[in-house]
Amino acid sequence: MAGNGTASISAAERSAMARARELALLGPRGVNPQVGAVILSPDGRVLAEGWHRGAGTPHAEVDALSKLAPGEARGATAVVTLEPCNHTGRTGPCAVALLEAGVARVVHAAADPGEASSGGAARLAVAGVEVERLDEAEGEALIADWLFVQRTGRPRVTVKWAQSLDGRAAAADGSSRWITGPEARAHVHRERSAHDAIAVGTGTVLADDPKLTARIPGVDDAPQPLPVVFGERDIPAAAALRAHPRGLRTAGRDIEAELRALAADGIQSLYVEGGPTLASAFIRAGLADRFTIYLAPTLLGGPRTAIDAIGVGTIDEQRRLAVTRLEQLGRDLLVEATTESEQ
Amino acid sequence: MAGNGTASISAAERSAMARARELALLGPRGVNPQVGAVILSPDGRVLAEGWHRGAGTPHAEVDALSKLAPGEARGATAVVTLEPCNHTGRTGPCAVALLEAGVARVVHAAADPGEASSGGAARLAVAGVEVERLDEAEGEALIADWLFVQRTGRPRVTVKWAQSLDGRAAAADGSSRWITGPEARAHVHRERSAHDAIAVGTGTVLADDPKLTARIPGVDDAPQPLPVVFGERDIPAAAALRAHPRGLRTAGRDIEAELRALAADGIQSLYVEGGPTLASAFIRAGLADRFTIYLAPTLLGGPRTAIDAIGVGTIDEQRRLAVTRLEQLGRDLLVEATTESEQ
Repeated sequence: MAGNGTASISAAERSAMARARELALLGPRGVNPQVGAVILSPDGRVLAEGWHRGAGTPHAEVDALSKLAPGEARGATAVVTLEPCNHTGRTGPCAVALLEAGVARVVHAAADPGEASSGGAARLAVAGVEVERLDEAEGEALIADWLFVQRTGRPRVTVKWAQSLDGRAAAADGSSRWITGPEARAHVHRERSAHDAIAVGTGTVLADDPKLTARIPGVDDAPQPLPVVFGERDIPAAAALRAHPRGLRTAGRDIEAELRALAADGIQSLYVEGGPTLASAFIRAGLADRFTIYLAPTLLGGPRTAIDAIGVGTIDEQRRLAVTRLEQLGRDLLVEATTESEQ
Repeated sequence: MAGNGTASISAAERSAMARARELALLGPRGVNPQVGAVILSPDGRVLAEGWHRGAGTPHAEVDALSKLAPGEARGATAVVTLEPCNHTGRTGPCAVALLEAGVARVVHAAADPGEASSGGAARLAVAGVEVERLDEAEGEALIADWLFVQRTGRPRVTVKWAQSLDGRAAAADGSSRWITGPEARAHVHRERSAHDAIAVGTGTVLADDPKLTARIPGVDDAPQPLPVVFGERDIPAAAALRAHPRGLRTAGRDIEAELRALAADGIQSLYVEGGPTLASAFIRAGLADRFTIYLAPTLLGGPRTAIDAIGVGTIDEQRRLAVTRLEQLGRDLLVEATTESEQ
């Protein structure tokens, strides 16, 4: 089984794990986790590196082993960001591949949470391979959204909105241009790029005609989230969104079903940009995990609240959050929070 | 006239000015400013101290001089937190009293902004007294609210409210108990004590039956603000507010007239505690100078906004604020802000 503590981990293995995390990020986000692997000789030299390139392609350990000649991995150590799988899917179990290659020792970070795929570490240990855990927290952070999907069956949802200090998204007549300043708007673009998909309601598409691209100064190849438009109304043929580099996905009324479908298509994280109706629907359904709220130092009053009814009839039903970050962004305030269950 | 710079100020004078500020605070807040004075011998010894004890009593300089034998102040230096007045009211001009006592030098902090009372420094200088300015900013800070009243004819108004992150004061059914935590509530009590009066609407009195006292743990003699109840409805005979140590004042619909009347009665600062109707009325009338907003990490949605209509029809009419303080108070966030004109 897993070793007790990290006392027996070598410096070469620690260094290899850090490198494996870098390798992991070379692979795509999708239905499978990002995983990296480094094969070390018994004296700590790097023999091979590998990473997972997405569903249907070899897992990271197998990718690394494939770069070695037969027998070259005999007695070697495999350093992997995720516990080797024990599951025959489109590829064979990594645990078996490591055993067949003659690997004598495995150092891994995160445990595999899958019902079908877990147990790789135990299988290796039973077969006489030394198995150690290292950098578990970093390994889990690397695939946090994927782990969330494994646990819940849906992407992790961040709901974002901008509001006046008193909770309004617009003045009484609906005008809202530039409530927040350039720093907050730049932050939104970085947040878009950090999510796999971005959700808006048809109301927002019709009112604001957003591009929904992530535009980051100095970064030409910022990852672009897939735009997902929720709602019943048609998207105009001339909508700016139709020119989005990732195309366009539409979604219906059943948010939970749509989220499951997104997860099945490899979307691990969703950024809900608004407007108030869509954001409130996610909160009401208990499907908002994280909140990014921009507070502009202004008061608007009146009927245009940033959040509508969210199903809180009495105070005991309030949606308690935990603030995880608070800072000034130019003239605006940024509050990041999570649902208490997310902490 | 005033000296150019503070190069000629002695260490004894600097020390005396710090002491004069302490003395000033021994006097009451009211229609007159709090002022302290120290008389120094030519070689820098403290001859006498004085402070102003409120309208109709001697000004600080005269109070200090009164402790000296005839002739004892000849050639002395008067160190005063506010420019000696040039005005015959219920007391004679301090400038004249200083001249008659034979004071050779005056060091003062804030300038007297009064139309009738200013000019004391010039009168002294013309008569051959050396006049210097020292610690002007500290001197003005000491009487900031009084200076505000002189400039505007009304008390400085702080509007306070507690809300969920999305701007609600209560759940849909009106329940709101303990939205904010104990740290925020303790802060409210310190804020109450730091203001001369506290305003609530009759709606809040009827709904919450507040005591409106400032209760600060470990401080038995915290200054208690005068409670002022705005509105048309009657205050119940059994209302907790009727037991307030400062009594109870009622006020009508004309907020501006009520504020002028409060200033005439020596109220320099007013803390508007709520509810939403009263707070919104102050903001709508442009009579809110400072804002203390407690943001609880919770979402409520629904109709019970902490601020109602404030006369912002379109975005160009928004009430821009400047955030002056941002901090976490326990689980809650505290945002302090001012109107841009207040900065």
